[in-house]
Amino acid sequence: MTSNRFKFTIEATDGEARTGVIQMHRGEIRTPAFMPVGTAGTVKAMMPENVRSTGADILLGNTYHLMLRPTAERVAKMGGLHKFMNWERPILTDSGGFQVMSLTDLRKMTEEGVTFKSHLDGSRILLTPERSMEIQRLLDSDIVMAFDECTPFPAEYDVAKESMELSMRWAKRSREGFNIGEQHADKSALFGIVQGSTYKELRFKSIDALAEIGFDGYAVGGLAVGEGQKAMFEVLDFTMPRMIKTTPRYLMGVGKPDDIVGAVERGIDMFDCVMPTRSGRTGQAFTWGGAINMKNARHKEDERPIESACICPACKQYSRAYIHHLIRSGEILGAMLLTWHNLQFYQDLMQNLRNAIAHQNLSKYAADFRFNYNAGDIPAIL
Amino acid sequence: MTSNRFKFTIEATDGEARTGVIQMHRGEIRTPAFMPVGTAGTVKAMMPENVRSTGADILLGNTYHLMLRPTAERVAKMGGLHKFMNWERPILTDSGGFQVMSLTDLRKMTEEGVTFKSHLDGSRILLTPERSMEIQRLLDSDIVMAFDECTPFPAEYDVAKESMELSMRWAKRSREGFNIGEQHADKSALFGIVQGSTYKELRFKSIDALAEIGFDGYAVGGLAVGEGQKAMFEVLDFTMPRMIKTTPRYLMGVGKPDDIVGAVERGIDMFDCVMPTRSGRTGQAFTWGGAINMKNARHKEDERPIESACICPACKQYSRAYIHHLIRSGEILGAMLLTWHNLQFYQDLMQNLRNAIAHQNLSKYAADFRFNYNAGDIPAIL
Ligand SMILES: [Zn+2]
Ligand SMILES: [Zn+2]
Repeated sequence: MTSNRFKFTIEATDGEARTGVIQMHRGEIRTPAFMPVGTAGTVKAMMPENVRSTGADILLGNTYHLMLRPTAERVAKMGGLHKFMNWERPILTDSGGFQVMSLTDLRKMTEEGVTFKSHLDGSRILLTPERSMEIQRLLDSDIVMAFDECTPFPAEYDVAKESMELSMRWAKRSREGFNIGEQHADKSALFGIVQGSTYKELRFKSIDALAEIGFDGYAVGGLAVGEGQKAMFEVLDFTMPRMIKTTPRYLMGVGKPDDIVGAVERGIDMFDCVMPTRSGRTGQAFTWGGAINMKNARHKEDERPIESACICPACKQYSRAYIHHLIRSGEILGAMLLTWHNLQFYQDLMQNLRNAIAHQNLSKYAADFRFNYNAGDIPAIL
Repeated sequence: MTSNRFKFTIEATDGEARTGVIQMHRGEIRTPAFMPVGTAGTVKAMMPENVRSTGADILLGNTYHLMLRPTAERVAKMGGLHKFMNWERPILTDSGGFQVMSLTDLRKMTEEGVTFKSHLDGSRILLTPERSMEIQRLLDSDIVMAFDECTPFPAEYDVAKESMELSMRWAKRSREGFNIGEQHADKSALFGIVQGSTYKELRFKSIDALAEIGFDGYAVGGLAVGEGQKAMFEVLDFTMPRMIKTTPRYLMGVGKPDDIVGAVERGIDMFDCVMPTRSGRTGQAFTWGGAINMKNARHKEDERPIESACICPACKQYSRAYIHHLIRSGEILGAMLLTWHNLQFYQDLMQNLRNAIAHQNLSKYAADFRFNYNAGDIPAIL
C-alpha cells in the first residue's frame, strides 16, 4: 500500500460543515469539493487544463459510457483514463449502476446483477458488482464507487427496503471485487453508497451495513432523483448525524448552487453534477444573482460581462451581447465559454464555502448567498 | 490618413512567388498569408487567442452572416467587430455578394444590387455596393472587399462578360462608397476583385478596369467554384502576369494545402478557406502525409499523435485513439482539437512557404511537399 493511498484530514468545522483535504497519490482534493463530470472521457467542450484552472481537483468519469465506448479494455491498453484524457489528477468513477437504470430500457435485474442492451449496438451486457470493480480498475480510477441500485423515487417502504438490502449485498461483493485488484487497490479508494430512499430506518440500516463492510468514504445515493430540495434536505438532516464523521461524505448528482450550500451546511464533503456543463451548452449561466438565460433578448446589446466578479475568460474578454449572439447562432464557442464560466462559478462557490467554514462564518455566508441568489440578475440595460 | 494605413513590402521573391509583409494599424500580416474564417464573429470551436497562437495574423469575417445576425449596426454599437469577438488584429471582410449567391434562394439581381430573403426571418433585403461598403465600415473592417458578382462556373462567354462588366461597375461604386466613409477609409484598405471566369480576355479587361479605379490590393474571384485544380491553375497562369506586382494578390476561398502551394508558386499572397475549420468539425485532419479521416477504425488503438511534427495541443497531449474516440462519440472537444490542429497545420504550411521563398528554395520545398502529401499517412498500427 502506498503511503498516500487515501488520507482525509478535517482542518476546520463550522456547525455540521467541515473543510479539509483528501490526500491521494495523484494529488490533493480540497473539501468541500465539486467534481466536474467527464462522462465519456471529456468534460464536454473543455480542455482539461482549463478545467483545472477553474480550481477543480478531481473529475468524475462514467463507467457506463466508457465501458460501451471506447471500452474499459481499450482505455487500459491506451495507458488508463488519466493518460487517455490528459488529466493526471484524481478521477472518481461511478459504478455504472445509476446510468444503466436511468439510460437503458429492457434491463433485467437479478441477484447477480443487471442485464441491459447497449444503446450503441444493441448487444446484451451483464453488469455485476465484480464486473463494475473490474471496469473501474481497468480505467485506473482513483476513487471507485460500489455497485448499487439507485432506488427510484418515490418508492414504497417494502420496495425501498428490498432495494437497499440488495445494494448492501452488492456493496459487500464490491468490496471483495475491489480488494482482489491488489496493485490497484493499494493506490486507490472505495466508497460505499447509502440507500434507503426517504426512510430514516432504512437509511440507518444502510449506514450500519456499510460501516460493517468498511469503506474509505460514504456516499448518499438515491437523492436528486426528483424529490425536491426540501425532501432532500430532510433526508440529509436525519442521515448525516448517523454517518461516520472521519471519512468523506459524498452527495451524488447534486446539484444546483443552493443545493450545494445547504448540503455543505449539513456536512457533505463532495459533489458532482452535470448542471454547470450541461446548462452551459444550452445557454444558461450561473451568477451570484441567480441563473440567467443568455438567449434572452435583454442581453442582446449588453456590454457587461456575465458576472463582473468572475475571472473566467468568458467574463474577462466578452460581453453578454457577444455570448447572446453565439448562443443564438448555435456557435460552439458559446458552449465553450458558458461551460468554462459555469465551472468557474461552481469552483468559486466551493472556495467561498471552504473559506467560510475555515473562518467560522458559514451561516452568514450562506444567508448572504441565498439573499443575493434569490434577488435576481443585475437590472437590464434600457 | 494614418501613417500606417496600408503598406505592402515584398522582402524576397522566388520565381513568381513573393514573401513580404502588409503593415496596417492593427498589426502586420506576413505573406503569403492564410486567413482563418470567422463566419459569424467566431472562428468556430476556437478561442481567438488560440487562433493567434497558431500564427494567424488576420481573420476573415462574413458580411452576409453578420449583417443578418447580430446585424452590422449592433456590432458597431458594441464597439466594432474586433472588440465584439476579442480579436484586436486585422480583419478582412468579404462583401456579402458571394454568400448571397451561394446561400440564398429567390434572389433578384439588378443593376442596383441584389435583393434576397434572409434565411433567418424571411425578410427581403437589398444589398448594393454602397450598402456593402456601409456594412463593412460598421464592422470596422481593416480590409474591405468590393461588392461583386461571383460568376457561376461554368459560364458561357457572353454570360461571363456581362457578369464581369457588372462587377466592374459595382467595383467603381464600391470605391466611391468606401471613400465617403472618411475616418474609416483613412485607416483601412479596399481590395478589388478580378472576374472573367476562365476567359483570358475577360480577366485582362477586368484587371485593367480595376487598375483604372485603383485599389490597395486585388483578389482573384470566381475560382474554387468547382472548376478543379487544373483549370484554376490555368486561369492563374494567364491572369497573374497581368496583375499589378506591387500590391497584394488574394485568391478567394482557396483552398486545399496543395492548392495553396501551387497558387503561391504562381504569385498569390493571401488565402482564406473554411477547409481547416469545417473539416476539423467532421473528423478530418491534415498531416504532411495527406488528409486523414479520424473516424477510421485504423486509429482506434493508435497511441501516436495525429502529426508528430506538430506543436498543437491535439498532437502534444493526445493520441489518435483518443481523438478517434471523441469524434466517434460526437464530443465537442473532438471538434475543438481537430480545428486547432488543422489551423496549426495551415499556418505551419504558410510559414514553410515564406521560409522557402526567402531562401530561394520554393521549387524544392513544393516538390517535397507534394511527394509527401501524396505518399499518404504513416503505416497503421497492427
Ligand atoms: Zn465567468
Ligand atoms: Zn497538431
